[in-house]
Amino acid sequence: MPAKFHAIKALVFDVFGTVVDWRGSIIREVRKLSREKKLALDPAEFADAWRAGYQPAMAKVRSGTLGWTKIDALHRMILDDLLAKFGVEGLKESEIDHLNRVWHRLAPWPDSRAGLKALKKTRTIATLSNGNVSLLTNMAKAGGLPWDCVFSGELFHHYKPDPETYLGACELLSLEPAEVMMVAAHKNDLFAAKGCGLATGFVRRPLEHGPAVKNDLKAEKAFDINANDFLDLARRLGA
Amino acid sequence: MPAKFHAIKALVFDVFGTVVDWRGSIIREVRKLSREKKLALDPAEFADAWRAGYQPAMAKVRSGTLGWTKIDALHRMILDDLLAKFGVEGLKESEIDHLNRVWHRLAPWPDSRAGLKALKKTRTIATLSNGNVSLLTNMAKAGGLPWDCVFSGELFHHYKPDPETYLGACELLSLEPAEVMMVAAHKNDLFAAKGCGLATGFVRRPLEHGPAVKNDLKAEKAFDINANDFLDLARRLGA
Repeated sequence: MPAKFHAIKALVFDVFGTVVDWRGSIIREVRKLSREKKLALDPAEFADAWRAGYQPAMAKVRSGTLGWTKIDALHRMILDDLLAKFGVEGLKESEIDHLNRVWHRLAPWPDSRAGLKALKKTRTIATLSNGNVSLLTNMAKAGGLPWDCVFSGELFHHYKPDPETYLGACELLSLEPAEVMMVAAHKNDLFAAKGCGLATGFVRRPLEHGPAVKNDLKAEKAFDINANDFLDLARRLGA
Repeated sequence: MPAKFHAIKALVFDVFGTVVDWRGSIIREVRKLSREKKLALDPAEFADAWRAGYQPAMAKVRSGTLGWTKIDALHRMILDDLLAKFGVEGLKESEIDHLNRVWHRLAPWPDSRAGLKALKKTRTIATLSNGNVSLLTNMAKAGGLPWDCVFSGELFHHYKPDPETYLGACELLSLEPAEVMMVAAHKNDLFAAKGCGLATGFVRRPLEHGPAVKNDLKAEKAFDINANDFLDLARRLGA
């Protein structure tokens, strides 16, 4: 493996958008539900609106306006608002609950599984997501994601980008921050990790917000690796 | 699957003695070290003495005499005492550290891997051990243990049999205690889990303390399952 990355013993991964395609997965399920229930929803608009509620909901927890709340419960609050806003009526509680758990069933990007398997051979691989532990565990079982362990903001009662999350993961791994690489498609997540002393791996996910939205895909010198996908990341790490 | 166990969605496992053979593994490594370094140690006596220090060390944390301390550090305190007591001299720090990490390399019982793989098909399987997260993660990588997630007393800053551990695991799984089965070779662990409302699976490990020591292997009506090994447990659960 390249000498400069020899010190990296573990990789921790952002999940929504980095490992799995939340938008495509939600669009597929909402389209299906919309047809079955004759709801006339725009699935892409619905998916984007649901995701748009995510940062503001977490901000309430980070600021202390809301006590510690799992993402499942935040997703549900946003969903209840959206169903009203989009004029959806007549869904049973079990149907709404099933829809809310679409986040447990998000599909991996095409390279995610193979890339993680390659990386797992030489390093410990773990999630470091704001998704709750049961969400991440169910998603891994459904999508065949071979995590060595599942870390979540839930373990620290802090959401990324709070430093408690990055430093908490290093503490659980019994590693120094410099021995751990944060992998994400989102630069703010990586800059926050870097601020805590972790190594950083940027992975481009040009389709995260759909084909019409241009993500910031520019390589950053500040990051240790700028990769095109997980297989590219594995090659650059010599895995 | 048998109707009575349909409600069980996840299994959480005690690890030392239940999943892995700590005594045999330590004896093998100590014997090898003893030969290489001409130490004239009795490997079985050393293994038993090391394990004997474990409950008293955790008791200090449980009582508050000692602040939160990972098992790796507790193992090291006990080891330092033992090396002095057994008159072992001349080991380098790196050699003592490597010996201390024998707990990261404990070998699974012959049925553990196959049993866990079978159980994983129909349930979430997780550790619930007093071993720290990195210890359990390294052990799983070395021994091919296919955990869905790794739970440890470290996540709750409480050691089993404190109720915070059993209830904490259920909370992370987003399951009711009655939907989670604690699996262990130790009855006190199971009675404590049962007290928190979890289902219980007893697995006999007649050789945990070596061929000369008779364990309590008697089935208990209080437990939901009394099994001979993990494959037997999987059969009884219909996995």
